[in-house]
Amino acid sequence: MQTVQRSLDSDPTSQGTASEAPAPTIEVPPVTPGKHQVVIIGGGFGGLYAAQQLGRADVEVTLIDKRNFHLFQPLLYQVAMGGLSPGDIASPLRAVLSAQKNTRVLMGEVTDVDPERQLVTLNDGRTIPYDDLIVATGMSHFYFGRDDWADVAPGLKTVEDALEMRRRIFAAFEKAENTTDPELKQSLLTFVIVGGGPTGVELAGSLAELAYHTLRNDFRHIDTTASRIILVEGMDRVLPPFPSDLSARAQTDLEKLGVEVMTQALVTDIQGHDITLKQGDQINHLKAGTVLWAAGVRDPGMGGLLADRTGAERDRSGRVMVSDDLSLPTHPNIFVVGDLAHFAHQGDRPLPGVAPVAMQEGKYVARLIQKRLKDDTLPPFAYKDSGSLAVIGRHAAVVNLPWAKLTGFPAWFVWLFVHIFYLIEFDNKLMVMTQWGANYLTRKQGSRLITEKVFEKAEAGPPK
Amino acid sequence: MQTVQRSLDSDPTSQGTASEAPAPTIEVPPVTPGKHQVVIIGGGFGGLYAAQQLGRADVEVTLIDKRNFHLFQPLLYQVAMGGLSPGDIASPLRAVLSAQKNTRVLMGEVTDVDPERQLVTLNDGRTIPYDDLIVATGMSHFYFGRDDWADVAPGLKTVEDALEMRRRIFAAFEKAENTTDPELKQSLLTFVIVGGGPTGVELAGSLAELAYHTLRNDFRHIDTTASRIILVEGMDRVLPPFPSDLSARAQTDLEKLGVEVMTQALVTDIQGHDITLKQGDQINHLKAGTVLWAAGVRDPGMGGLLADRTGAERDRSGRVMVSDDLSLPTHPNIFVVGDLAHFAHQGDRPLPGVAPVAMQEGKYVARLIQKRLKDDTLPPFAYKDSGSLAVIGRHAAVVNLPWAKLTGFPAWFVWLFVHIFYLIEFDNKLMVMTQWGANYLTRKQGSRLITEKVFEKAEAGPPK
Repeated sequence: MQTVQRSLDSDPTSQGTASEAPAPTIEVPPVTPGKHQVVIIGGGFGGLYAAQQLGRADVEVTLIDKRNFHLFQPLLYQVAMGGLSPGDIASPLRAVLSAQKNTRVLMGEVTDVDPERQLVTLNDGRTIPYDDLIVATGMSHFYFGRDDWADVAPGLKTVEDALEMRRRIFAAFEKAENTTDPELKQSLLTFVIVGGGPTGVELAGSLAELAYHTLRNDFRHIDTTASRIILVEGMDRVLPPFPSDLSARAQTDLEKLGVEVMTQALVTDIQGHDITLKQGDQINHLKAGTVLWAAGVRDPGMGGLLADRTGAERDRSGRVMVSDDLSLPTHPNIFVVGDLAHFAHQGDRPLPGVAPVAMQEGKYVARLIQKRLKDDTLPPFAYKDSGSLAVIGRHAAVVNLPWAKLTGFPAWFVWLFVHIFYLIEFDNKLMVMTQWGANYLTRKQGSRLITEKVFEKAEAGPPK
Repeated sequence: MQTVQRSLDSDPTSQGTASEAPAPTIEVPPVTPGKHQVVIIGGGFGGLYAAQQLGRADVEVTLIDKRNFHLFQPLLYQVAMGGLSPGDIASPLRAVLSAQKNTRVLMGEVTDVDPERQLVTLNDGRTIPYDDLIVATGMSHFYFGRDDWADVAPGLKTVEDALEMRRRIFAAFEKAENTTDPELKQSLLTFVIVGGGPTGVELAGSLAELAYHTLRNDFRHIDTTASRIILVEGMDRVLPPFPSDLSARAQTDLEKLGVEVMTQALVTDIQGHDITLKQGDQINHLKAGTVLWAAGVRDPGMGGLLADRTGAERDRSGRVMVSDDLSLPTHPNIFVVGDLAHFAHQGDRPLPGVAPVAMQEGKYVARLIQKRLKDDTLPPFAYKDSGSLAVIGRHAAVVNLPWAKLTGFPAWFVWLFVHIFYLIEFDNKLMVMTQWGANYLTRKQGSRLITEKVFEKAEAGPPK
């Protein structure tokens, strides 16, 4: 093992500058030499549940993530709306896994995988040997080939994304309050949400609550209830994966809240704040101060890397095709779980990219690895669908259980309970419960602070 | 009144680009013409308490702030340490003042004050007329003429400052975990806090809790209890404004926690991460991965502007000298409250720059304005000292009351109670109480997520 001199100033995950010679590789030794090494890339639902399932196994676990926390993504839209703080839905990975003595957390970015030498390489030159590798890096959002829209229409994958959405939403109201130009005022009070899946529906519903209720008495020169909130979905109904009666109910609930729902509508162009929509033969032009993106997913790179190194096949979005035990057909000791996995061995369609699938996949692979160490195996992975749910507003949701469909307040209550239950840490459960209680009672959203770049970063797009 | 075309893309507080012609000024009309206009600049303790005191007065209040929230600064160090989220200690100004119908909030940055025409100008060209003006913009931190230290040694005034401190502290542990160079590891585990006032003591104490307790089981390749935490104070004791026995007790408590306290010590140079300290004749060189700044204040500009426009006198730090009713001697309808005011009419020294002084000053001016409208007046302002307090760790504090001195656990309990009591909103009280309860029980700090610039922003200073 080589020692390498690293600068105090360097990023924890990068070494030196681009102009320097490539960093010498240094192998990170196992904590307990000789132990079976399981390396997990990604601390989302798939990776974290796999790590936790391996907590008492006779293996050594290394969990690698670019970030130092697990993010409870299903509530990220609440951070965007100022209802929760990032800390409420983030759990430090080290804290969660602290008591698990066979597990270490490495903060770093994986740049390569070598299936022959069974090594993972980080961007600072460190390499980590593995016996079993679990890849759980997820997907990022996709602008259907129009990456230039990214600046105008932020998506919602990271804490930073959520704070950027929050900044734009609240800054739009502030700008509207400040201007005396009526046309500009109306554009600033127009919000377009692209994508009618659960995230889009949740964003639209909570934005409607915000504009039509929470903020209604806060301004003196604008009427926030005159805001337009437009949800754009390409398919013929919102929440396409849900049964059609639940989709219809969700749309009714959204419309009751004041959201304009446009189905079979596509965004064909975004120029600054001029949005072009195509609905059938009709072309609509809109001026919207804020566009939020909740459509499309793609492989952020790890899928491509794996395919390159292992010959694994991928689907059109870049997901990796996995065997019925979630391993790669060519490499039985490399597993892909969560959103990045294309699991086509159950039902007509691949499993959806949702948290419960990732959790079950992560746990399955962890159990399979333990079985194999005892020269045993498991039956193929089978997803147990415990239902899907989407929240619409302060009191409404749709819940699709295998044995029942719920709507309205009961659905909302189930949604609330499930989300608190699955928060990883006790702290978070307590905080989210308290915050929701307070928000519900006071109808305020106390976390709506505009931070960081409000007065610094110019937004994208040419000026009007 | 002119209408002005403003871009959708512009910052809410700026108009057009520097290359354009200066923005035409537009006067923001009063909501109720004819009402006595009170304009307050700054939504900190002084400004907000003044605004609230005027809630039922027969005046129109305009509160101007660059940010959309009031910040409970005494708990900002907890955000830096990952114990609280920014949302827990911030209250949206609009929400706080929403029910106060005679009050509007303007988000904007004041660039000029015209005492003759009684106008305040914002950086987007808007002007706001006033009958009475309350300036409550506070102070910023000061590097004793070494502004180049700002990048290496962040201070603690804004939410962004706190998140930057948090990022550096937690990234230092991550970097230490990642390196195999023992000398580098030790530098990364060395933290220097400059300034032994309440903020410095609070930072040092909570950092010691973090390194020696909270994080002790979270890493596999470093021992966080081997961290060095050094508190540097120029005077002969920490907490100089406190009685000397409380200072001594605070130092003992800090040392018990593991903090190295250096008094009569000055930082004479910071080059990257090489710190030079002078203690008497002794010169010490230290390598510290993280330097936190908690010393020195100066006028960020508003004091200078006021002095220019009104001929007001200022002290060495740039504070504005005020009359015994907090007005300017030359302009009885312009008041300065809070940290920016130098009030020298009580005791030997000017009143300290702490929250209770700002609150009482804000309220006094609000009451004085109401009295004057009835052709009445008030006796000169007199600060009622209800005591000062500083927290040292999880169970220790020092409290200096006019009738008693408290230390240890009882002091900590008083500190806790006072801080929750004075949080502006019910939401915040509830959240902070819950979070403290959870932190106390679990000894975790759930909000220690490293966000934003972790992997982007290079830290300052030349590489080692």
